[in-house]
Order: sequence, then structure tokens, then C-alpha cells
Amino acid sequence: MKINVLKFGGTSVGSIEKIQSIAKKLVNRKKQGENLVVVVSAMGKSTDELLNMAKLITPNPDKRELDMLLSTGEQVTIALLSMAINALGCKSISMTGSQVSIKTDSTHSKARINSIDKDNMLNYLSEDRIIVVAGFQGVTENGDITTLGRGGSDTTAVSLAAILNASCEIYTDVDGVYSIDPRKYPKAKKLESLDYDEMLEMASLGAGIIDVRAIEMAHKYKVPIFIGLNTMDVPGTIVKEYDDNMEKKAVTGMSINENILMVSVSDIPFDASNVARIFSKIASKNIIVDMISQTAPHNNQINISFTVEKDDLYDLEAVLIDLKDEMPSCDFSFNDELIKLSVVGVGMISQSGVASKLFDVFSENNIHFYQVTTSEISISYTVHSDDLDRAINVIAKVFKL
Amino acid sequence: MKINVLKFGGTSVGSIEKIQSIAKKLVNRKKQGENLVVVVSAMGKSTDELLNMAKLITPNPDKRELDMLLSTGEQVTIALLSMAINALGCKSISMTGSQVSIKTDSTHSKARINSIDKDNMLNYLSEDRIIVVAGFQGVTENGDITTLGRGGSDTTAVSLAAILNASCEIYTDVDGVYSIDPRKYPKAKKLESLDYDEMLEMASLGAGIIDVRAIEMAHKYKVPIFIGLNTMDVPGTIVKEYDDNMEKKAVTGMSINENILMVSVSDIPFDASNVARIFSKIASKNIIVDMISQTAPHNNQINISFTVEKDDLYDLEAVLIDLKDEMPSCDFSFNDELIKLSVVGVGMISQSGVASKLFDVFSENNIHFYQVTTSEISISYTVHSDDLDRAINVIAKVFKL
Repeated sequence: MKINVLKFGGTSVGSIEKIQSIAKKLVNRKKQGENLVVVVSAMGKSTDELLNMAKLITPNPDKRELDMLLSTGEQVTIALLSMAINALGCKSISMTGSQVSIKTDSTHSKARINSIDKDNMLNYLSEDRIIVVAGFQGVTENGDITTLGRGGSDTTAVSLAAILNASCEIYTDVDGVYSIDPRKYPKAKKLESLDYDEMLEMASLGAGIIDVRAIEMAHKYKVPIFIGLNTMDVPGTIVKEYDDNMEKKAVTGMSINENILMVSVSDIPFDASNVARIFSKIASKNIIVDMISQTAPHNNQINISFTVEKDDLYDLEAVLIDLKDEMPSCDFSFNDELIKLSVVGVGMISQSGVASKLFDVFSENNIHFYQVTTSEISISYTVHSDDLDRAINVIAKVFKL
Repeated sequence: MKINVLKFGGTSVGSIEKIQSIAKKLVNRKKQGENLVVVVSAMGKSTDELLNMAKLITPNPDKRELDMLLSTGEQVTIALLSMAINALGCKSISMTGSQVSIKTDSTHSKARINSIDKDNMLNYLSEDRIIVVAGFQGVTENGDITTLGRGGSDTTAVSLAAILNASCEIYTDVDGVYSIDPRKYPKAKKLESLDYDEMLEMASLGAGIIDVRAIEMAHKYKVPIFIGLNTMDVPGTIVKEYDDNMEKKAVTGMSINENILMVSVSDIPFDASNVARIFSKIASKNIIVDMISQTAPHNNQINISFTVEKDDLYDLEAVLIDLKDEMPSCDFSFNDELIKLSVVGVGMISQSGVASKLFDVFSENNIHFYQVTTSEISISYTVHSDDLDRAINVIAKVFKL
């Protein structure tokens, strides 16, 4: 059975009218004989509204209960979309993560999928129903509701596509992947296709169109992903395995991540166990660390900086208070005024000179960067937010993005 | 293990502040050593808001999907209340109907409970947790979410009390059961206690404080119910089995039901099969019929009137359109301007003259009634809404309510 998994994000289902409009398009595709599994997010800002209610009760709500709360957002959308499809005379059925049996570990708020049972879905598809699945949520072996973290609906969609051997279409409020976020650089070009690794760098480094875990999973299970506008009527971007038909530019695009917090720890006694202690404590809170840079030892002391997501501030502070007790000579500081710029291109593997060209650009334009890290297909910088626009413009010009 | 089941309705949990205030009182009782299972409704008007969204999509939404939608209301409350309890340093856990394993039949929107698994709850209680259960919802054998109908949270609370061999406390925004709804008749008296049958008549006939199915169940399983104000600091009313200490008045109270629609079917050919056909069609839609009255045959034709809840209008219209096809000679009409008044008292069984006194009162005051029905402990009338206030006043005066 050929199956298509489609995913609509919160903006795409942000009102009753939008839900009805999507229902119509789904019914049309169903009438063409397609077997559809549709994954949806919570409507508009409803996840934020639920989160705000929780925060009124306590700044650090119990995570199991927070998942119980947040999972209602998607449940509302699946019920409404399924009603709308039914009302158009087409059979439909909504399913929560628990009903699909999307089994996860018990890391509440950032759970990982362990298994998915496809039998229920295949039964419903064989009854000619459109299946509407709540994104972002799963269930533990004990029956506790979990959520997969921000962007988790993408992960749900790709996981379902993988288990159902289906293609995956991610519909959103942008019409594809651009070389640079068009809100930051209106002259950016839409990319026809890019490979998983590039998309991974673009997404994890902040393009914000599709969740990084979803791309990793798509890569692993070779699920091609179409990213397109939720009106479903304009060409989008395909993310797939690298092939020779893809453009051979050194630099494909640049991503911008404003949701970073740089943490600096200075005067750490030069001993590998100290650094290990810092990062293991942070890891124990499931905080993802990015852009680690370390200075060479001076007076037998080193400085380390790294970035985390701004959302992790609360959990991180608890860790740092602990560490300060254990390492009283160290000094801890935050900087939340930095932006991460990443220049990405699978062509960098074979073409040299990208890094050198970039350092020239920063120097010529007197743009100060705080950190620099590199991967095989990307180079990332943290710059002050005041320098952001200038940096984007000069880089876009040099690499014709 | 001695367990108390407490239930808080939508008004009682209508804001974050109210939820926090209930959490404090629960934590205090837990500290006194009580084992608490708390059943909550959706916050304030949230069920109506969800229902309105559904109605924007279609006037008659698919009932499975409507249950999927509405059940999120209670899920939000349990998560928030459990967070609030946790934030006060007391262990708590929220459970959906599905997690408690409240198994129901598959009559969506009006499901009946078949079984409840108490093991999970007993385990959590033995871990010293306050359990917060979503009222109004259950799950079918297939894992579909069901709801128990309006007032279903009361049914949840009493069912849990029955299975846990617990007492049941229903907290609401009125401080007990009055002889007449105090909003309609401010001089009404608060009743200290009444028996299940009286409460059943008062509730089913419209007192609106506690759901009729919950009282039936409490009666069946001999669960004493305390009904009190959600501030938990004033005396309320106890509903229990009749005993000799209860006051021996002929009339305990009067209930008023404004949510009725009188349906009249005239010129029905005088043949029992026709009447049976009408009511079996209505029953097949799970519409509850009340106050059936039938005229004696005239010209070999009869007229029948009966009342239903106003909410059932949509389903009922579909039935009547069918019937009109089958019985073209009959005429169908509605009247939504009537109110049902019921005079209730377990003492009526042994004391005669209540009916006679009432007919006198209606006659002397020139109040026209449309229908009259009687049970062992009650007499009910439908009167025009314009006559309501006068009727309440004269009846209250005659029976000193």
C-alpha cells in the first residue's frame, strides 16, 4: 500500500477556517486514491498558552504533568480536523500518540520514540479512512503521556513515514528552504533540493523550518521529505540523499539562530576531570550543548564557553549553582545578546577556501565574532546581535546566496 | 485503607487562583493523613468553548471526535491541579479516564461505565500521592475516548467512591441543597440531609447540583454523598439512605427545570404500534424522554406530548422528519417556552392531599399547566415561563419551603 504522511504545523491549523481548508485539500487527495496519514500540531499559539498557565502555577512545573497538559493541544486539533473531514463526507479517524501506540522512553518533555505499532493505522487505512494523528506526543510503557520536545510533530511525521514506508510532506508557513531566512535577507533564493546533511546543519543551526531530530531520522530511514507551503499549490524544497544532480556550490545557505545563550566558565583548574564534570552535570539535565570552545591553558587555568538554548536557562542555572559549590574558584557568566551564524554547504568537503574567505569578510568589515566552530560542511560564528544585519549582507554577497 | 473521593466542578476550578486554592486545602487534608482521590471537571466554560469550536465546523460533529475534543478540557485541569499540589511539596499524580482504566460502552457523548480498575489508584495511594482524576471521561475496550455526558464528572466521582469503598464529597458553587433553587426563591431553606430518592427527583427534575446518574449509582452502591461549597468551610447537605431522623415533611423541596422542550404529536391513528414506533425511534438516538402525557382517543385519534432536553433538538428533528414520512397524517410541534416545576418529598408516600392542595393552588391563582405527571414522591407540572415566579411563590408559601 502506497501511503503519504503529511504534516501541518501550528500556524497551518491556527484557526477553524484553516482547518477546514486543509480538510478540503485532504479530501480531494483522498478522492484521487491516495492513502493519507496526517500529523498535526497544536493550533496556533495554544501550546504557549498552556505553558503560560503552567508557569502561573509554578516556574518549574512537574514535567510529567506538563506533558499531560501540553499534549491536549494536539488532541484538540486532531479532533477538529477529523470532524471537518467527516463533515465533508469522507471517513476519517483521529488518533492520539497513545492510540497509535507511539512508545517512548520516560524523559518527559524531551522523550525519544522507541517503537510505533503500525497495525492500527493499516487497519484504518484499509477501511478507507484518512488518519489524523496528534504530533509531538507519545506514551511510555507505563501509560504515561510524554512529549517529544519542540518541533516534535516533525519527528512524529517522519517516524510514521519510516514505519509505514511512506513519503513525508511537511507543510508550513514558508514555501520551502531558502539559502538564508527570507525574513532576515529578502533577496535569498529558494533551494529546489538539498541533502540531509545540509538540511541538518541548516535546521540544527536555526533555520527553524523542520526539527533536527526529524531530519536525522529521515536520513537514517531514507525518507524523502518535501517541505512546502500549506496552501499546497506552489513548488517547495525536497530533502533527500545527496546525488550528482544537486548543485555543486561550496556554500548552499546560511542559517541564523537567535535562540542561543553563551555560557562562559573562566579560571577552571587545568584538569580534564573538571571539564568532564561540567558537561556531565549539564547532560544529566538533558540540556543540549552546542559550540564548545576552550582556550589554551594559562597559569594552569582554562576558560570554556559554550552555547545552549535560551529555554534551558532555568535548568542550567540549577546546574551552575551546584558547580559553583564544587569549584568555587571558577567564574560563571551568561551572554544572551549573541546570534549564531552558520554557513553551510556539502560542497565544502571538496572545495577549500571557504573558511579563509569568511575570516577575510569578518576582518574587512570589522565584525567581531565571539566563537567559531567548524564541521565538514559548515562553519559557525557567534556575533553580537548589533552586527547581525551587516554580517548577513556581506556573507550573502560573497557567496551569492 | 480509608479513602475520600472529592469532586470539584468547573466553576470551582475556573481559574489558576482557584486551582491553587483547592491544592492548598487538599495538601492540608493529606497532611492530616487522609487518602485522597480528587475528580475534577474542565475549567469554567472551557467545555462550552470546545463545543463552540466544533459547532463552527459542523452543526452535528462526529460524536467520537467530539469526545476526543471535549475530553481535553478535564485533562488540562488534572495537569494543572497536580502541578499545583506538587509545587506545594506534596506528591501527586494526574490520571486520565483511560489511565485509570474507566472502561465504558461505546455510546459516544453519553457513555456508561462498565468497569474501573482500582489497582493503579491503590498503588499510587500507597506511594502517598494525591490522585487527580479527569472526570467525565472513559475509554472503550478499543481504546477510543468516550465522555459520560453533561454532569459526567459526578458519575466519575461516585463510581470511584463505590469501587474504592470511599465516601464522596461533591464541591460546587452552592453550599448545599435547598428546598428551592435560591436563585429562583431567595427565601428557600438549606436541607441538612435528604434521601437518595428525594435527591434523585430534585436532580433529575432540574436542581442541577449533581447529576442524576451519579445519585442512582450512589444509591445502588450505598455511597453517602456530601454536597458542599468549594471553600470547604461551611456545612453542606448529606444525601444518604432514608432514616427515621430525617424530617417527616410531606414536601421537602421543589425543583425547576428550564432546559425542556415540549414536543406534541397530534392526530395519531389510535393504535399502540404507532406510539411504540415514535418512542423506539427516539430511544434509538439515545434521547431521554420525560413527562409523557397522552389524551384519550377522539375520532379514533390520539395526541401525545412529551418533554426532552433542549440540547436534543438536533437529533430529535432528524427522528421527526423520518416519522413524518411514515405517518403523514400526524402533526408535530415544539414548545420551548415551558418550565417544569416538580414538588418532591419522600413523605408524600405516607401523607395524602399534596396533589389536591397543588391543584387548588394552581386554580386559585389562575396558573395554567400544560402537563402533569406524578411519581410516588413527586408531582411535576409544565407551566409557561411567564407564570414561573408566581407559581414558585404560591407553592413555597403553601408548603413552607
